[in-house]
Amino acid sequence: MPVQNAMTADFLRSAYGGESMAHMRYLIWGNLAEKEGFKNTGRLFKAIAYAEQVHADNHFKELKVQQGDYTVAAGAVFGIGTIVENLQGAINGELHEIEQMYPVYLNTAKFQEEKGAERSFHFALEAEKVHAILFKQAQDAAKAGNDIQFESVNVCPVCGHTVTDEAPDKCPICGAKKEMYKGF
Amino acid sequence: MPVQNAMTADFLRSAYGGESMAHMRYLIWGNLAEKEGFKNTGRLFKAIAYAEQVHADNHFKELKVQQGDYTVAAGAVFGIGTIVENLQGAINGELHEIEQMYPVYLNTAKFQEEKGAERSFHFALEAEKVHAILFKQAQDAAKAGNDIQFESVNVCPVCGHTVTDEAPDKCPICGAKKEMYKGF
Ligand SMILES: [Fe+2]
Ligand SMILES: [Fe+2]
Ligand SMILES: [Fe+2]
Ligand SMILES: [Fe+2]
Ligand SMILES: [Fe+2]
Ligand SMILES: [Fe+2]
Repeated sequence: MPVQNAMTADFLRSAYGGESMAHMRYLIWGNLAEKEGFKNTGRLFKAIAYAEQVHADNHFKELKVQQGDYTVAAGAVFGIGTIVENLQGAINGELHEIEQMYPVYLNTAKFQEEKGAERSFHFALEAEKVHAILFKQAQDAAKAGNDIQFESVNVCPVCGHTVTDEAPDKCPICGAKKEMYKGF
Repeated sequence: MPVQNAMTADFLRSAYGGESMAHMRYLIWGNLAEKEGFKNTGRLFKAIAYAEQVHADNHFKELKVQQGDYTVAAGAVFGIGTIVENLQGAINGELHEIEQMYPVYLNTAKFQEEKGAERSFHFALEAEKVHAILFKQAQDAAKAGNDIQFESVNVCPVCGHTVTDEAPDKCPICGAKKEMYKGF
């Protein structure tokens, strides 16, 4: 069933705006990391950019029937600095989503009994928790002048779950099969 | 020189938000068009999604020194409908940028003597004019049940200028060479 309540719809639009801007800045920071020779940090940014696209896509589709033009208010991090600084920007954005934004949006969706939005916010919240950890690992490496080490990064196309090296048999967030993960 | 004035910086952030959301919804609508067998309409959406990425990238980079977290207010179109309806959503968004948003942002950048922002807003405004025409062509075809006809779509990676079939020797907006155009 499409979203019925104005407040949950508003939060879906804000979350869509936030995810769209996160997707874009991770592509920008990823390209910069690659240019500076941090190839895996660049890949991590691009893989997580794809995960944010999955979140934006999910939120947009829950809004199906809410057609039209809206002014969207959404949080975003700005700035181009060193790799360590850009990774700090990424960590700050993820932590805001984990600690403040998605818990409130999820709580609202439950309160307004919006099952579709609840699912979409839950997927994003759980995926962001992994993103914050991965960006922190990349930042710890970058602080020592190193690139983060992994063979590949894999992203669940249903919920945005992100994992370095081998994907799990079943996505721990949404249950999607290993074969569905998209590799970077 | 990086942006100095708070109002121009605010408009760069809003434009970044609007472009990031446009990029995302064109990817979504492009995938839906492809699934319905409108392959070229899908390619057009994806090519223009890339052009919006160029605009977002330009705006973000003009904000270089304005690091930190912001709440961004930005216009966006929502809704998933028929191909003709989605193309109307795209046309509406482009026309708002052409007739209202970018003229005001450009006028402000000139008034505040922000050369970098002026360039970034000018590039976007001129590219959006072509986007509105191309989406209208695709919509006219879709209304008759047909897919828009072309061999390729080419996008200037500097300003987002978009052209079906052969790229011009020099980009009419920014002067970039034909060889730089990205094909879709
Ligand atoms: Fe996300
Ligand atoms: Fe994330
Ligand atoms: Fe998943
Ligand atoms: Fe644009
Ligand atoms: Fe456009
Ligand atoms: Fe150009």
